[in-house]
Amino acid sequence: MGLEEKIRETVDQYLMLFSSSDREGWLDLFTADATVEDPVGSPVLTGRDEIGTFWDNTHLLADSIQLVLTQGPGVCGNEAAFAMEAHGRIGETETVVPTIDVMTFDDDGRIRSQRAFWDSSTLMAGV
Amino acid sequence: MGLEEKIRETVDQYLMLFSSSDREGWLDLFTADATVEDPVGSPVLTGRDEIGTFWDNTHLLADSIQLVLTQGPGVCGNEAAFAMEAHGRIGETETVVPTIDVMTFDDDGRIRSQRAFWDSSTLMAGV
Repeated sequence: MGLEEKIRETVDQYLMLFSSSDREGWLDLFTADATVEDPVGSPVLTGRDEIGTFWDNTHLLADSIQLVLTQGPGVCGNEAAFAMEAHGRIGETETVVPTIDVMTFDDDGRIRSQRAFWDSSTLMAGV
Repeated sequence: MGLEEKIRETVDQYLMLFSSSDREGWLDLFTADATVEDPVGSPVLTGRDEIGTFWDNTHLLADSIQLVLTQGPGVCGNEAAFAMEAHGRIGETETVVPTIDVMTFDDDGRIRSQRAFWDSSTLMAGV
């Protein structure tokens, strides 16, 4: 499998495993020294422990979170970007966070860095 | 006007001026030493002359090009990312290039860098 195909597979898994609450499977998608900056401008998290805490904090915010791909990924060498919506549900209430993720990958298609662009002005109540 | 508002205005202008073929107005959105990497992985262009040549080459490819915002921008500090489609028309034929743009800005909201994620696998014939 070529690198581009591996990257597309990783992005698919990233969305699917996050949405199905598979914490360890999702963390396995990252390299050991991977970084996460979500949202861009917040402290950069490094490695499985810090990224795992990010997962925990994010999943505490809602009963369930579904990540829905809306455009891309555009894959360029060992980098990719895609647009998605994070649909968080708390009881009967759904909040949608439109997000642009920008990632770099190692030669095996594992995520070396993730930067997520979203801001409070674009939050919206879901339908 | 705060920086976030300036950045949103610049992104609006970036799409609008490119689509209306206003070359000089579009180039005015960039700082003097701005860089463009479009697509990501291609040689980085620096400054008005090189970015102007990029404009010329791009507009030679089609009779008209319309940039249509599809998601965002997500604005984080002096950075932003958004999803769009470039609709290029040659005679009766339209080609659509789904693209994710990632930009940094100076304090006046002018573009310091642009990186565009798109790849040939996502080109599609328009409707």
